[in-house]
Amino acid sequence: MNLERISEKLGITKERLDGLQGTAVKRSSWPEPRLLRFEKTTSGIEAGTVVFENGEIVFGYPKIRRALMLAPAIKKHFSDVVAVEEKMNGHNVRVTSVDGETVALTRGGFICPYSTEVARRLLAEEIFEEHPGVVLCGEMVGPENPYVPKDIYPTETIDFYLFDLSRKNGKSTLGVYKTHEFARDYSLKATALLGEFRKESAPERIEHIVRKLGRRGREGVVMKDPENRAPPLKYTSSESNCGDLAVAFRYYNDYALDFFVSRAVREGFQSVEWNESEEERKARALRLGESILLPLVDTIQRKSSGENIVQKVQIRVKSLQTAKEFEYHLHRSGMRAIFDQPEPDDDGYLIRITKLIMSTNDKTQALLEGEMW
Amino acid sequence: MNLERISEKLGITKERLDGLQGTAVKRSSWPEPRLLRFEKTTSGIEAGTVVFENGEIVFGYPKIRRALMLAPAIKKHFSDVVAVEEKMNGHNVRVTSVDGETVALTRGGFICPYSTEVARRLLAEEIFEEHPGVVLCGEMVGPENPYVPKDIYPTETIDFYLFDLSRKNGKSTLGVYKTHEFARDYSLKATALLGEFRKESAPERIEHIVRKLGRRGREGVVMKDPENRAPPLKYTSSESNCGDLAVAFRYYNDYALDFFVSRAVREGFQSVEWNESEEERKARALRLGESILLPLVDTIQRKSSGENIVQKVQIRVKSLQTAKEFEYHLHRSGMRAIFDQPEPDDDGYLIRITKLIMSTNDKTQALLEGEMW
Repeated sequence: MNLERISEKLGITKERLDGLQGTAVKRSSWPEPRLLRFEKTTSGIEAGTVVFENGEIVFGYPKIRRALMLAPAIKKHFSDVVAVEEKMNGHNVRVTSVDGETVALTRGGFICPYSTEVARRLLAEEIFEEHPGVVLCGEMVGPENPYVPKDIYPTETIDFYLFDLSRKNGKSTLGVYKTHEFARDYSLKATALLGEFRKESAPERIEHIVRKLGRRGREGVVMKDPENRAPPLKYTSSESNCGDLAVAFRYYNDYALDFFVSRAVREGFQSVEWNESEEERKARALRLGESILLPLVDTIQRKSSGENIVQKVQIRVKSLQTAKEFEYHLHRSGMRAIFDQPEPDDDGYLIRITKLIMSTNDKTQALLEGEMW
Repeated sequence: MNLERISEKLGITKERLDGLQGTAVKRSSWPEPRLLRFEKTTSGIEAGTVVFENGEIVFGYPKIRRALMLAPAIKKHFSDVVAVEEKMNGHNVRVTSVDGETVALTRGGFICPYSTEVARRLLAEEIFEEHPGVVLCGEMVGPENPYVPKDIYPTETIDFYLFDLSRKNGKSTLGVYKTHEFARDYSLKATALLGEFRKESAPERIEHIVRKLGRRGREGVVMKDPENRAPPLKYTSSESNCGDLAVAFRYYNDYALDFFVSRAVREGFQSVEWNESEEERKARALRLGESILLPLVDTIQRKSSGENIVQKVQIRVKSLQTAKEFEYHLHRSGMRAIFDQPEPDDDGYLIRITKLIMSTNDKTQALLEGEMW
């Protein structure tokens, strides 16, 4: 690597880049191509930024900030029109081509072997032949998403939805119109554009959209300035907030604690902003309480009847090599998972995976045996 | 101070004690007498342990561990009989006499000027004349407890309930019988002894007691081995868990996050152990959800209508000096509070105190103005 050139493209000095290596910047030599990975946001460079061996850079996708009070946030943040897209619930990938090979990068800047195989299957080769510098920013969703399995989208396996575009070696993203145009040109799925509203009427329209999405189990919206003059904002449905809590409490000893408070606080602000009646507020409190209590009860009862606390997911791969590599990828991400024997299926294999939720499993067992908290 | 003698009494070397000073051990020179304070549990010495200038030591009261599953915890922990006392909801003090003066120590090992005045008012002088070495471990409770104001106890101001005894320079506590005997001898209030049960029948009896306490808004129970062969265990009512959550969410940005998860998890275990019907579980979920949502909504609405997020408490003192000192004590504990002009009342003063909840106040204001989370 020519560290001089690379640091110039990153906008930092070579000495700074040298200094970051081993701390904020980590090497990853597998799968190929080898790369440097920004594990933390530092010196103005977003976490997840990747420098490939050939010197090409894919910047991390900027974290989207969240509105808690919709109306004042929109008023403060946007200049006139707000484009509203669906926020999808899966895992975020950046897909690009390096030395002629398509790779899918996770948020953290790892090449995920499974996401890469999925991307190669779903994305036409001509995309990268015609646009060798493009980076497709999208969400992988569906029941065979092994990170966030969801059966609320129109796929029985896993699908890719484009939500933004950027270019290698550049930080800026291309925005709503270019993204949807690109998706049309290459017959890609893109996150649904649910409307464009003047900022005055946007809060009411978005409230309506978010309620409707919530009823269908969907996550919420991302609001964008169609002229790309302000970064996007996100806002989620009550059902999604409570769904997150349900997962957090099912695996109560494995999930980050702060996960919890933020979701609950969102519910308070939404209830106030939507000016709920006593009845509506009671229904929301019940939904919130049940999303905490019932998964807890379920986990405790399962453990009490001798089951192990695990999460079952599945993937479908063309090549057994991908499954092997994905197993290693989960392992290096700190996850303990058991891969079943592959089951042949169409032109590939179905593989059932059991993710071990060790901390919750062991803690629940101990508490059931009378251990103290 | 003779550090040689002191370290011997603490059971550590003088070098170790020297090494701890400034880190785990802090000096406090106000109010008199001056003392060393163990801020953290270290070298087997409980946090809150205090060494007075005259060399006398008051050990920290051991942290009481919590049962999450009552029946297996009792079975595992106790040998035959379980004595059950009410757990009271206030602040824990250790009252003792140093150089002829009664002082009340907080859990952290500070002399609290207000608690000290209350202790001097409530505890007969003869106690310490007849037992100069005794340490009274008890709970200060009532509506004029400025830390945890509660109007569920039979006092309109503040009261002291003895729950254990120990001696200066000794770690051991004297246990249930000696404590209640001592309370009778000196006409002190003691935490209610609700029964002694064989360990086989204890879980069922305690469940009944805890449900009943919960309905009256009381906190729960402390279970003790009457022969003092095992340390005590605590267990709380659903109403108390939810009450804690209500306080935490009213001041959602000021309270520790882990506070939250532990309370919710208790609800899950209680619901499973008490084998609740679907209906009962729904009622518990609603209680849990409301204890989170409603205080949040109230805080947001208050701030939105221009109120500041504060907590109002009050104390009653004989001497204005105590109020001044208590103001300084709160300040050094990191609390911001505004003391109103004292109002003369009987043979003392009533002082209203406004505790500022800065972080929640400012965060709520910002979010209402459209700031992102």
